[in-house]
Amino acid sequence: MPAPFRTALPAVVLVILAPLTPARADDPLPSWADGPARQRIIKFVTAVTDRSGKDYVPPERRVATFDNDGTLWTEKPMYVEVVFSQERVQALAGKHPEWKEKEPFKTLLEGDPARVTRLTDKEIQEALVVSHAGMTTAEFDALVKDWLATAKHPRFKRRYTELIYQPMLELLAYLRANGFKTYIVSGGGVDFMRSFTERLYGIPPGQIVGSSVKTKYELRERGPVLVRLPDFLFSDNFGGKAEGIERHIGRRPVAAFGNSDGDQQMLEWTAAGEGARLMLLVHHDDAEREYAYDRTSDVGRLDKAWDEATRRDWLVVSMKKDWKVIYPFDKK
Amino acid sequence: MPAPFRTALPAVVLVILAPLTPARADDPLPSWADGPARQRIIKFVTAVTDRSGKDYVPPERRVATFDNDGTLWTEKPMYVEVVFSQERVQALAGKHPEWKEKEPFKTLLEGDPARVTRLTDKEIQEALVVSHAGMTTAEFDALVKDWLATAKHPRFKRRYTELIYQPMLELLAYLRANGFKTYIVSGGGVDFMRSFTERLYGIPPGQIVGSSVKTKYELRERGPVLVRLPDFLFSDNFGGKAEGIERHIGRRPVAAFGNSDGDQQMLEWTAAGEGARLMLLVHHDDAEREYAYDRTSDVGRLDKAWDEATRRDWLVVSMKKDWKVIYPFDKK
Repeated sequence: MPAPFRTALPAVVLVILAPLTPARADDPLPSWADGPARQRIIKFVTAVTDRSGKDYVPPERRVATFDNDGTLWTEKPMYVEVVFSQERVQALAGKHPEWKEKEPFKTLLEGDPARVTRLTDKEIQEALVVSHAGMTTAEFDALVKDWLATAKHPRFKRRYTELIYQPMLELLAYLRANGFKTYIVSGGGVDFMRSFTERLYGIPPGQIVGSSVKTKYELRERGPVLVRLPDFLFSDNFGGKAEGIERHIGRRPVAAFGNSDGDQQMLEWTAAGEGARLMLLVHHDDAEREYAYDRTSDVGRLDKAWDEATRRDWLVVSMKKDWKVIYPFDKK
Repeated sequence: MPAPFRTALPAVVLVILAPLTPARADDPLPSWADGPARQRIIKFVTAVTDRSGKDYVPPERRVATFDNDGTLWTEKPMYVEVVFSQERVQALAGKHPEWKEKEPFKTLLEGDPARVTRLTDKEIQEALVVSHAGMTTAEFDALVKDWLATAKHPRFKRRYTELIYQPMLELLAYLRANGFKTYIVSGGGVDFMRSFTERLYGIPPGQIVGSSVKTKYELRERGPVLVRLPDFLFSDNFGGKAEGIERHIGRRPVAAFGNSDGDQQMLEWTAAGEGARLMLLVHHDDAEREYAYDRTSDVGRLDKAWDEATRRDWLVVSMKKDWKVIYPFDKK
């Protein structure tokens, strides 16, 4: 039975061609300005892939974890999933007259962005869980995909899925070309993210670590379904990011990428391993091309993690200085 | 920066050589008797890897999920993790005088195997959670590894890690050689299993789906740790297997392998997808070489899932007839 041989051939072709296909194989990070940030990334990748060097990391240990909101796509003026959730709450309000007087639904229904951004994490969680429950996982996936296909960002008038960071796409591809396995580790919902992460970032559904609700297996007449319950299972933020990494991946990352205080523990957890490490924070300091916010922002606050980055010499990337372009559509 | 090229070369070498290295590349399943079970497995794999056939499945969708206890290793007379748990309870009993009078600890301390096997799932869960908590994830890993290195099976007088099924090892390798990604989906604890699954089965820690306890991130003086809490997070059994698959993998398997009623929903969930599928149950019918048990067994009961297999023409493998050898050490 020569089946093993039959699949070996296409696999080889794929592996040989993959590094050749990018237009600029000689410059893996063309959207990164030639400065210390870019140099440090390349130095790290070169060190851990150099078989004869002291910092060599075997391929199976090359785990890189990326936050999503504010690290791979724009999170201002409000986390995309919260915008989706707000519209779900508005759509379902007719069936829930009590929401008019009950927080956090009242604020979401009234829709004043300044007040929505000031909802606590716990309130946002409650709204997410309730508005994302009562349907099957397949129905939820369809809802998210439909919404993302049409919803537009209030300032850029583009679909949210267009507002991904070109330099980070290049970084993802560069790491993968160097044998890294790339994961998302986000406070966002696993199922929400899976509706776009493979298409946008090339990260398959099994490499998405995130928050999740409980589900229930039901055998219906037309077959089994998984029903989403209005009950939180796991919050993948702050310390939860290290917990999610351990539970899902079971290996400590050697590189971790974030942008806010919610990523601090993921970077600490990464830094605590032995050998060469790369801890990177994206600093949103470009009000003209994107947004400028840090220590006092309600969304994506970067305060304690920034101090920690300074103290421990983690790489802080300036969107303004280190990124030649922000979005793919900016490219000439 | 030619780093992408540097890694491309070893990858190619690996892919070309991998299918050649097994001694019997022409017979991927040498420990399977030449009969209908073996033929059906090969027919399925041939069909889904044939690019020109109607049943072709692209590599990224070739997800195969394996139960562990009773499917990949021996689960009689008692699940290995419960034996470990029982010994932990005995070791900790001095600090918990109340356990002498309190179930399930009382039964575990007295140690009558017949009564231990009759503990309910909920009681076993309680013992597992309590006896596996209060230490860091790293400390737990060390405890399990130490225990597995010395503990012996009461009948075979071998380490538990030797009591893995040679035919299933060949099946795992055969599927991987044909582009499948192999996962464990087990009622057992993720962290317990990870201490041996990569070494025994070649399945990396990120492809282990299982039950888990809650953990807590703590920043200690010497660095961050994850502390295991005496609180259950998720039970990956029965319907939980489909839930675990969806949450962790996010893709429906095209092949699923189990041996007991706890696997029924995983096989149902797998079967409910479109296109060619393989659902397989190992039937323990070999009292001489291993054990014979099914409808009335307290451990690994195969009753409802067997009826379902008959009704839906899932493949039921007879250990006695379909497997030439059981364990690797049986091989001549």
